[in-house]
Amino acid sequence: MPIKTGDQYIERIDRQNINILYKGKRIEGPLSKHPAFQGLIQTQAEMYNMQCDERYLALMTYPSPDTGEPVGLSFLPPKNAKDLQRRRRMIELWSNRHHGFLGRSPDYMNTAIMSLFTAADILEDLNPKYAENLRKYYAYCRDHDITLSHAFIQPQASKISGQIDATEDSIAAKIVEINDEGMIVTGAFMMATQGATCDEMLVFPTPSPSFVDDDNPFAFAFAVPNDLPGMTFFCRESYAASSAYDHPLSSRYEEMDTLVIFDRVLIPHDRIFYYGNELYCSRLFSESHFHTHMAHQIITRYIAKTEFFLGLLESLAEEQNVVLETHTILPISRTITYLETFKALRLASEIGASQDKFGYLVPDKGPLLASSVHFSEFYPELIEMVQNLSSSGLIMILSESDFDTSAGSYLSQYLKGTVSEAWYRNALFRLAWELGAGAFGGRQIQFERLFFGNSQTLAWRMYNSCYNHEYFRQIIHEFIAPEELRPNSTTDGDSN
Amino acid sequence: MPIKTGDQYIERIDRQNINILYKGKRIEGPLSKHPAFQGLIQTQAEMYNMQCDERYLALMTYPSPDTGEPVGLSFLPPKNAKDLQRRRRMIELWSNRHHGFLGRSPDYMNTAIMSLFTAADILEDLNPKYAENLRKYYAYCRDHDITLSHAFIQPQASKISGQIDATEDSIAAKIVEINDEGMIVTGAFMMATQGATCDEMLVFPTPSPSFVDDDNPFAFAFAVPNDLPGMTFFCRESYAASSAYDHPLSSRYEEMDTLVIFDRVLIPHDRIFYYGNELYCSRLFSESHFHTHMAHQIITRYIAKTEFFLGLLESLAEEQNVVLETHTILPISRTITYLETFKALRLASEIGASQDKFGYLVPDKGPLLASSVHFSEFYPELIEMVQNLSSSGLIMILSESDFDTSAGSYLSQYLKGTVSEAWYRNALFRLAWELGAGAFGGRQIQFERLFFGNSQTLAWRMYNSCYNHEYFRQIIHEFIAPEELRPNSTTDGDSN
Amino acid sequence: MPIKTGDQYIERIDRQNINILYKGKRIEGPLSKHPAFQGLIQTQAEMYNMQCDERYLALMTYPSPDTGEPVGLSFLPPKNAKDLQRRRRMIELWSNRHHGFLGRSPDYMNTAIMSLFTAADILEDLNPKYAENLRKYYAYCRDHDITLSHAFIQPQASKISGQIDATEDSIAAKIVEINDEGMIVTGAFMMATQGATCDEMLVFPTPSPSFVDDDNPFAFAFAVPNDLPGMTFFCRESYAASSAYDHPLSSRYEEMDTLVIFDRVLIPHDRIFYYGNELYCSRLFSESHFHTHMAHQIITRYIAKTEFFLGLLESLAEEQNVVLETHTILPISRTITYLETFKALRLASEIGASQDKFGYLVPDKGPLLASSVHFSEFYPELIEMVQNLSSSGLIMILSESDFDTSAGSYLSQYLKGTVSEAWYRNALFRLAWELGAGAFGGRQIQFERLFFGNSQTLAWRMYNSCYNHEYFRQIIHEFIAPEELRPNSTTDGDSN
Amino acid sequence: MPIKTGDQYIERIDRQNINILYKGKRIEGPLSKHPAFQGLIQTQAEMYNMQCDERYLALMTYPSPDTGEPVGLSFLPPKNAKDLQRRRRMIELWSNRHHGFLGRSPDYMNTAIMSLFTAADILEDLNPKYAENLRKYYAYCRDHDITLSHAFIQPQASKISGQIDATEDSIAAKIVEINDEGMIVTGAFMMATQGATCDEMLVFPTPSPSFVDDDNPFAFAFAVPNDLPGMTFFCRESYAASSAYDHPLSSRYEEMDTLVIFDRVLIPHDRIFYYGNELYCSRLFSESHFHTHMAHQIITRYIAKTEFFLGLLESLAEEQNVVLETHTILPISRTITYLETFKALRLASEIGASQDKFGYLVPDKGPLLASSVHFSEFYPELIEMVQNLSSSGLIMILSESDFDTSAGSYLSQYLKGTVSEAWYRNALFRLAWELGAGAFGGRQIQFERLFFGNSQTLAWRMYNSCYNHEYFRQIIHEFIAPEELRPNSTTDGDSN
Repeated sequence: MPIKTGDQYIERIDRQNINILYKGKRIEGPLSKHPAFQGLIQTQAEMYNMQCDERYLALMTYPSPDTGEPVGLSFLPPKNAKDLQRRRRMIELWSNRHHGFLGRSPDYMNTAIMSLFTAADILEDLNPKYAENLRKYYAYCRDHDITLSHAFIQPQASKISGQIDATEDSIAAKIVEINDEGMIVTGAFMMATQGATCDEMLVFPTPSPSFVDDDNPFAFAFAVPNDLPGMTFFCRESYAASSAYDHPLSSRYEEMDTLVIFDRVLIPHDRIFYYGNELYCSRLFSESHFHTHMAHQIITRYIAKTEFFLGLLESLAEEQNVVLETHTILPISRTITYLETFKALRLASEIGASQDKFGYLVPDKGPLLASSVHFSEFYPELIEMVQNLSSSGLIMILSESDFDTSAGSYLSQYLKGTVSEAWYRNALFRLAWELGAGAFGGRQIQFERLFFGNSQTLAWRMYNSCYNHEYFRQIIHEFIAPEELRPNSTTDGDSN
Repeated sequence: MPIKTGDQYIERIDRQNINILYKGKRIEGPLSKHPAFQGLIQTQAEMYNMQCDERYLALMTYPSPDTGEPVGLSFLPPKNAKDLQRRRRMIELWSNRHHGFLGRSPDYMNTAIMSLFTAADILEDLNPKYAENLRKYYAYCRDHDITLSHAFIQPQASKISGQIDATEDSIAAKIVEINDEGMIVTGAFMMATQGATCDEMLVFPTPSPSFVDDDNPFAFAFAVPNDLPGMTFFCRESYAASSAYDHPLSSRYEEMDTLVIFDRVLIPHDRIFYYGNELYCSRLFSESHFHTHMAHQIITRYIAKTEFFLGLLESLAEEQNVVLETHTILPISRTITYLETFKALRLASEIGASQDKFGYLVPDKGPLLASSVHFSEFYPELIEMVQNLSSSGLIMILSESDFDTSAGSYLSQYLKGTVSEAWYRNALFRLAWELGAGAFGGRQIQFERLFFGNSQTLAWRMYNSCYNHEYFRQIIHEFIAPEELRPNSTTDGDSN
Repeated sequence: MPIKTGDQYIERIDRQNINILYKGKRIEGPLSKHPAFQGLIQTQAEMYNMQCDERYLALMTYPSPDTGEPVGLSFLPPKNAKDLQRRRRMIELWSNRHHGFLGRSPDYMNTAIMSLFTAADILEDLNPKYAENLRKYYAYCRDHDITLSHAFIQPQASKISGQIDATEDSIAAKIVEINDEGMIVTGAFMMATQGATCDEMLVFPTPSPSFVDDDNPFAFAFAVPNDLPGMTFFCRESYAASSAYDHPLSSRYEEMDTLVIFDRVLIPHDRIFYYGNELYCSRLFSESHFHTHMAHQIITRYIAKTEFFLGLLESLAEEQNVVLETHTILPISRTITYLETFKALRLASEIGASQDKFGYLVPDKGPLLASSVHFSEFYPELIEMVQNLSSSGLIMILSESDFDTSAGSYLSQYLKGTVSEAWYRNALFRLAWELGAGAFGGRQIQFERLFFGNSQTLAWRMYNSCYNHEYFRQIIHEFIAPEELRPNSTTDGDSN
Repeated sequence: MPIKTGDQYIERIDRQNINILYKGKRIEGPLSKHPAFQGLIQTQAEMYNMQCDERYLALMTYPSPDTGEPVGLSFLPPKNAKDLQRRRRMIELWSNRHHGFLGRSPDYMNTAIMSLFTAADILEDLNPKYAENLRKYYAYCRDHDITLSHAFIQPQASKISGQIDATEDSIAAKIVEINDEGMIVTGAFMMATQGATCDEMLVFPTPSPSFVDDDNPFAFAFAVPNDLPGMTFFCRESYAASSAYDHPLSSRYEEMDTLVIFDRVLIPHDRIFYYGNELYCSRLFSESHFHTHMAHQIITRYIAKTEFFLGLLESLAEEQNVVLETHTILPISRTITYLETFKALRLASEIGASQDKFGYLVPDKGPLLASSVHFSEFYPELIEMVQNLSSSGLIMILSESDFDTSAGSYLSQYLKGTVSEAWYRNALFRLAWELGAGAFGGRQIQFERLFFGNSQTLAWRMYNSCYNHEYFRQIIHEFIAPEELRPNSTTDGDSN
């Protein structure tokens, strides 16, 4: 089966026999009808429908090299500039559809598995079977349009335990047994965003060092369906609501975060991508240019989201009749400045792309890292702009149902805006509220701030990118100490 | 009836026949049982109980000058330093009880009506009846422990209409008729915080200028019970929830904001404090030192809230084992710095208090205005500190009910903290979440940022306070142009 | 004469009979020997030598369309992508030579006059003579390698006077008389940076509106040599010093700012570019894409300067042995982030360039405006980074001559750095000091912050660039009010 | 001899036979005539004259307990609230005289030696002689009005050497020999601000740990005259100029920073305050409440300086006719806010003062530490305010001598301000320039930012002050986990 439709997406999700708890109760019945999931599932179904739509088919798919059937363009490993552009346009179509609010839009994980696939060769040394597993799994995802989530991070207690406890007692995720059928894993993973609204999950933790001589039981990566025996999902409180008027964002884009417990879960051998040697964790990430390929997907999401905020700020300004005031122009211009910046950085990453050792075209890392540093700081600033431009309008806002009452005429009279009627004005402020003061918006701030690591991680990654630190120091050296300026005595001193 | 108990408070609120809509439906049945109000009403009932408690009675009440019975100390018009201190201690007791989260803690409006009362004399000129009305109403509130809310602000559409429309068509709030029984008012008022959980409402809008020669129909102030015919309250969406574990703040402190419509409401003559002459609006505010008395109540609330955040930051640091790291010390030290600052500003306002023309002791305005400038900027910073120190812990948090399941043992194992068990650690992050990412916290950011006006209003108020701008310019003048430096030619030039 | 050498540049400057006052005294003797000017003149001479150097000739010149001789590439009006690239590389060569410190590097004004030239056609309507004057003057500058400065701004008193006084009494710059030989101008202009170290000056003030019916005497533009009768230059205090060790920057790059007085100066008719109609001022600027062409020169200067600061920060970190500390990585990574940003914005401006109506290729405005918003904010931040990383090393620094004394051995012993000797370490901190605490650096902060207008001007320019505000508002409109959500009652309301 | 006059101060400084190098040359002749020192010496002389002036005598002196003669009030060890107030008023008189620009105003070091004196008792254990030395030296300073400087910090190379080298080779300052006459010290000290314009120097470095069993040779404190054999002072470049018009600040307040080398300098035994045991270094600082007493002097300096900047901002606003614009009101109000804050913190430190174990009254530490955190951040912000309000007026400014020329009339015409003539307006901008862009102002930024340690040091000091961290954590603990909320299962879990 090639690209799937929205209905097929829903059907598969609903068919899963997933062990998932919401507020202490196991969810029974189809997820697509559950209030915490239905809006997001509906949005995602519409996105899948897009790629099957005649208008978009050519822009969003390419023929599978194995089957010839149309598969999603975000699975395409780019080999040339045109591939990169096609990927970019496809990502743009989906990003504009969800206005950048879906951190786990399917193209995100499609890109992830594509990226790992490009470096499958390095696994040959460790075990040719692993290389084959990874390649086959990638082809399986591509040709069946598998919706993936990922789980890379362990809870703090697991991490600490992995570092200090003897292997036996550690609660860090590990392979506890290997048998003919596969490997048995036990442990907990956090932040499997959209864990329950995907088909399968890629598990790829940062391994603790091992205290034993043999294979490191903490070092592994695999992918499995969500409903294997022994798996338990815990959900956080949902921020979704049903009214698209009252909660325009969360009714469509609320991606649930989950904690996943593996309690002696059997992973079939052919789903294991590496095991035993922790070096292969960092090698897989770096030699597949994982962060770079991901960042190329992400920057298009940043652009769509920035455009959405620009529209919101412009609308708030117009509605309150402050379009031409300095305190309005400053934030709007600042947003335009960043929009230009993200667009330029994306362009630079594409123009500067280069072939890697496996023959794939990798966008230039520097501009993409720069975009993640900028956005993690700029997003909280965007929120502050919305708060400042909305003022007390963020506090006193009404619900859709208030307009339907006999008293609703009071609202039409007293709450009208400068250019529009009360119903519309209130809708605008509800949107501003969801972003600037509601729980959906609160998670978004933290999500964007930490999307690619905290500020220190981002700074280190930037620092360690391709730069030649000595080159820049040399500029200064030649400037302050050219030959003619150096003292003789100093030269002598040098020779000591 | 003197100070009331919590039960009496609840009984009165529930007895009101208030016309209040929540999500399009009129609320039937007692407010104290309604999910959107019960937590707050319970908290406030406990606060009223405190003043009746033997342990606090002497600290929180004083004998009514009219009845001799104990009445709330926040009604006391301060005449000397001891009065000011007693007021401060009483406010402290309540603020520490609600950790500064109640913007409309009863002492807030008690202070408001006390402040206006101290300047009642100025109304004698306009109409001695108004002065008498204000004095009597104050005594009524004090001796019956009336819980007040206020409505000072009109929707933007009303404000614009008041400025540009002819009186007849304006939708700005105005007196539309005067008859033997009273004055009939029509209009809308926003942001009556706790409007529904109070006994009465003080209405005191900023008047538009009048286009007619007679009495300005936009200029008035009055106080009425909440359930007069013609009054309609609209609520915003409630952020309250019932579980004190899952929503520790909103389950206790969620103050509902309301929009109040007056549709030909009859205000009895003896409840009108001024009418017809818009000058008396600003005179009442300034000559009663309204903002200064209020700010003296508010600064104690700021201190209680800052201490709560300090505790939260210290707890988050301890729980994550980062107590001694620089990125932890910086925000905690910053919070201590501001705590010292607010305490010092309060002390300075009391030490620098002075007698006004009516014989009341007014705290020094400068330090109090400084505190409101600081807090409106520091509060959003506090939230950012909580976000940064909580990191992804603000995203993946579980509910109380998750711990009660058979799967709860997974949580105990994997989610434990550095110094405490999983249940407690999760509770701590739920608190951090409510402040740093939840809807209750979102409203608080905006509420504190705008509590006393937006940043421009605060800046102007500070600028226009008691300062002698010329005095400071003179320092510079004498420094750069002392007699001996001035050029002769210049002196000549002056005489032209 | 085509491109000039450094010697020719100096010879011309020294030959001028310019009426220039420094600290109250007219400068006599050659400027190139005057301490306030010699370093800058020497630097600029070396830059002119570069273009005559065989290694650079092809990269920095092109054949004059009139004479066929090599002329400076920054005079080239770009017609295609290759032209734009050649211009960029030439600007890069000079920018790297002065590390971005020369705001008036010759390519700056060469670009200015080139830009105005491209729109000369619009002057045909006003007076074909003006169009011809401008074209001829451009060719003259190009073919004689004229070093230009500009004077666009008038003192505050002149500006106010121009707005409120009758024409007769106004002290705003104006044409006071027209005769056969030319027009006679009187007025004052500020901030002619490098006024005295250039051959000629382009005067192009923003005109006040006129109170008379005839030609507006405030509306004009012209270019003249610096030594016409009636011209007086006043200098600010020089920050230059002679020791390249003690003052590594100001000894090379100190560009003097001047106030120029025109007291009945005769401007020959053929040097006047427009007169009498103030509309032509803004038309010339906008239709020549003046700010865009300039910004394309400037962004390369920004890049060179950012690289210099990156080198400085990296050197300070190394010298103090704090290369791998968080407080070091953060500012350095931030600088790398902006370096990537400026490079990407430049690339985007070139890739997005488009033909204007006169057939010239104009870089994309948006990315260039974004760079000026970023840099005006980032530069003061760079300075703060240098201050923070230098700490008290910015205060206690020694002079070159201290090392030459018998006591100098104390310095070698006690002041050595982590990787280098005391002499070098001290030189590094002297550079940090000139930027972060010296008078040269102080001017630079203000110069960069205001280079292209203050923050409000920049924000307005960004806001008013090519953006379709309505397009972005429409994103929001369709999101919150799609057809299916709109209430019936509302639709009815619409039709009123 | 009791309090000295300005003439006596100068006479003593000039009489010293100090070995001081300025730009590689030993200064010969009286310091008070040297351009780098004369302005500061003159200012300080006038300050000494103040205390001898009949108008100030009673406010600035008290009778010496030993001689009965009037001595400086800043030497008074406070025993009660009145002492503290008298000290404060005296410090205020001098601070207002120098507008807070002298970091080493004599009261600063007078307070330092007073503070150490109050804890002399702790030295009895180590050696009663040391205690006596310190008491006698304090009395000597007080009764002879000795002007002191201090040297606490060693160059980075010395510090590193002290930590890693064997004692023998270390270049950290140390006692290299002890003989009958005293102890012989070798080493380098940085940042002896005003080292050369004082009578004596207090040397009190942070000791490196010792690698030997005996007395730690790095651990010592002493005070000596500036002209002992073996001492060499190096100066940084002076920022002083002679014209009070052109350089209003540096012509009066330029405090030279020096590097002092001790090359086998003999310290008489009676000038040694402790030796051999490094614990006494931190004990002396903490038990004398050194930082607290100093901070009480400093906060008054902060207030004087903030008032000066307030005057400057108000003057710049008036001169440019922007008094009532938002971008003016915001910085001025912010400055008023901080002025109120510093005054309140000082008041709180005095009201909250408490007796130490030796019977002296010590101001409350918390508010004073808060003031140093605030000011180190607020001062750079003040500078940015001056830069922003001065705009390009900070770049193009003229010299006094320009006004004296025949061309000066141009300046009078074109450079006049809104309320004053050109001469005055230019003077105002020269002041703004010295602070916001000149070298004097550059050093001030760094000096104030680091005055009491860098931001991390300040944060740690604040964190480690008297606060009970557990008290604040307990607020949260009781809030989120009151008895009634704790789960039974959890309580059981606890008992495991």
